[in-house]
Amino acid sequence: MSIITLLTDFGTEDAYAGVMKGVILSINASAVVVDVCHTVAPQDLIGAAYLINAVYKYFPKGTIHIIVVDPGVGGDRSIVAVGLAEHVFLAPDNGVLTLLMDENDTDDIVRVENPHFFLNEVSHTFHGRDIFAPVASHLSRGVPLDQFGRSLNPQDLVRLNISKPYLSEKGELIGTIISIDHFGNCISNIDDSRLKEFIQNSPEKTLVIKVDKTVIKGLSQSYLNAAPGDPAAVIGSFGFLEIAVNCGNASRRLKVSKGHTLSLKLRPGSKIH
Amino acid sequence: MSIITLLTDFGTEDAYAGVMKGVILSINASAVVVDVCHTVAPQDLIGAAYLINAVYKYFPKGTIHIIVVDPGVGGDRSIVAVGLAEHVFLAPDNGVLTLLMDENDTDDIVRVENPHFFLNEVSHTFHGRDIFAPVASHLSRGVPLDQFGRSLNPQDLVRLNISKPYLSEKGELIGTIISIDHFGNCISNIDDSRLKEFIQNSPEKTLVIKVDKTVIKGLSQSYLNAAPGDPAAVIGSFGFLEIAVNCGNASRRLKVSKGHTLSLKLRPGSKIH
Amino acid sequence: MSIITLLTDFGTEDAYAGVMKGVILSINASAVVVDVCHTVAPQDLIGAAYLINAVYKYFPKGTIHIIVVDPGVGGDRSIVAVGLAEHVFLAPDNGVLTLLMDENDTDDIVRVENPHFFLNEVSHTFHGRDIFAPVASHLSRGVPLDQFGRSLNPQDLVRLNISKPYLSEKGELIGTIISIDHFGNCISNIDDSRLKEFIQNSPEKTLVIKVDKTVIKGLSQSYLNAAPGDPAAVIGSFGFLEIAVNCGNASRRLKVSKGHTLSLKLRPGSKIH
Repeated sequence: MSIITLLTDFGTEDAYAGVMKGVILSINASAVVVDVCHTVAPQDLIGAAYLINAVYKYFPKGTIHIIVVDPGVGGDRSIVAVGLAEHVFLAPDNGVLTLLMDENDTDDIVRVENPHFFLNEVSHTFHGRDIFAPVASHLSRGVPLDQFGRSLNPQDLVRLNISKPYLSEKGELIGTIISIDHFGNCISNIDDSRLKEFIQNSPEKTLVIKVDKTVIKGLSQSYLNAAPGDPAAVIGSFGFLEIAVNCGNASRRLKVSKGHTLSLKLRPGSKIH
Repeated sequence: MSIITLLTDFGTEDAYAGVMKGVILSINASAVVVDVCHTVAPQDLIGAAYLINAVYKYFPKGTIHIIVVDPGVGGDRSIVAVGLAEHVFLAPDNGVLTLLMDENDTDDIVRVENPHFFLNEVSHTFHGRDIFAPVASHLSRGVPLDQFGRSLNPQDLVRLNISKPYLSEKGELIGTIISIDHFGNCISNIDDSRLKEFIQNSPEKTLVIKVDKTVIKGLSQSYLNAAPGDPAAVIGSFGFLEIAVNCGNASRRLKVSKGHTLSLKLRPGSKIH
Repeated sequence: MSIITLLTDFGTEDAYAGVMKGVILSINASAVVVDVCHTVAPQDLIGAAYLINAVYKYFPKGTIHIIVVDPGVGGDRSIVAVGLAEHVFLAPDNGVLTLLMDENDTDDIVRVENPHFFLNEVSHTFHGRDIFAPVASHLSRGVPLDQFGRSLNPQDLVRLNISKPYLSEKGELIGTIISIDHFGNCISNIDDSRLKEFIQNSPEKTLVIKVDKTVIKGLSQSYLNAAPGDPAAVIGSFGFLEIAVNCGNASRRLKVSKGHTLSLKLRPGSKIH
């Protein structure tokens, strides 16, 4: 089995991902390449960090994940290969693996530096094709990780400073909208377990969620619990609290976009969370 | 052979389709997943009903088609697997299979309800990943349909009321534009055989097609039969009458969009249809 | 090994590419189909000519490349299969292979005309599905090229008149922006070797690049050599001179689009190219 996934900010208009697949298949004709997402906002390391952490676990163990969100291409940033949870992640050393490494113990980590596994000519602008694709393909053929470069420790890698939800002085849980999906659902950085912890620490029973001028009472189990056109708060499919509008586009309807703050408080009332 | 197709309204910006592929490959590493279309308009059941009916026949017999246009996710709608024309269709029971079932005899139909074939945790928002993908993958490994749930009859399934072309009091054939493609071609719900029937029942010989303010005389064999920039009516690649502009975008040029009516009449004249 | 690539102007909204994959897999279930690009501007033969010439070499020898940018579909243009550099290219005979054939000797060329290898019904609007896909799939199963039609000579094929960079009377090298990528980088038709030739013929040492009102001095090795927000000229990943803005969108920032002219001259100075 040799599955290689691609997560990039290349967009879907150009041939960049197609060319990477050509390089991969040139080295391992039986590799299976899966596009995870090519529409990370250009150079949005934090968005990519959340995405790879949310999706990798749905792929089989042994999958090799290529992440090319790489504003530093052509500079002196390293490329790293990180073994973790029986997957391998190949990425620039720019912090895009921060959340994965926060939540999992790592196995082997190497700095990818052996040009034997690169294309013969390495450009200064497209390492996805010239380094990431051939290295992943050689990995998928069973070349051991230690052949690609010297070993690193987890603390050697660049980490992003990703803001976490926090408690305000008034005891509200403050989070941030980290992405808007195709349906207009506004996904926050407050995950299921953080929310449970917040709720369990309080004797109050009604959850009140405020984002911009919209106030939502209670958590819905699905989008359908709100009337069509009304906003609802649900735990979305990757485990994060999200604001949705039943049969509508929450981002447009509520004028909420990436970076907006949301606040949660608990009030007396019947239990509706 | 184990081909699984995906037809959804997920759009192409998010990782939803990629995650479904991960789940499929986790269960059947040799499954081949083909993206049919992810840009059905959000929750456009009728558009999806036309599309799956137009495209499935170009895939090999034995293909499993997943259709996730699913405004009812998280509610009490069922999920069904329908065997038909030696293909299997896996969809919410919301009418999206209406046209397929109108035009074909069904084989086995089951209600998909055996959680043994679902992911361990089933969310309320993303059954594509948690139910459709794993069920399709188990099916592709040869698990018989009757293992997934109890048998249903065709009349047990939800049907959409999809408007068909009809004859007006004046004897005109009235149809509707059901989609606009990437080139701006305006595709109607009048198919080849309905058009032939209309023409054969009339002694008149010149077909006159009217859509909004545009009047087109006669049917062209291809886009090229009109002068560049001029509108033409052709039988499009899936067998439906469509309005095109040679080397141009008919939807923009003629200001025609989805839902517009078109009317066909026959007038005396030399045979130009 | 049987890799088939798709390069089209279909866009990514419709099911056209998906249907072609269905046809291919119906004939050769083990074919591997790779999307190179579906967002060539509608009917942009020159853009497609550059793209296929830039990307094919990253695929394994033996790959079959389908190019469907086909404004003449349904007319009397031919379809050709061209063997070249141990790849096979299947395209309308409309000049889209011009650059490939300018830069490489051809092997066998045939006119694709044997309906035995087409779908039973051939539409006038979608030869991608009805001819290109089945022919490519039969080719991938090893059917020899001469079974598809009669042999042609390279000079029998339509060639596009693609403007090349040229020297102005003042000795400037004049090029054209041929595409804008997802990041806003403006890619010209001046390639690495043409640029080297221009520079080597001059005793002057500082390269000055002018595009619209922007003047850039010197060539950068990567996007990073400019300050964030500043324009830079780099040799892009497919070997063409491109104008970029470090961490920004050059096309928007500098108001440069496809078709714009750029001019290069050499001036006295320290060597910064």
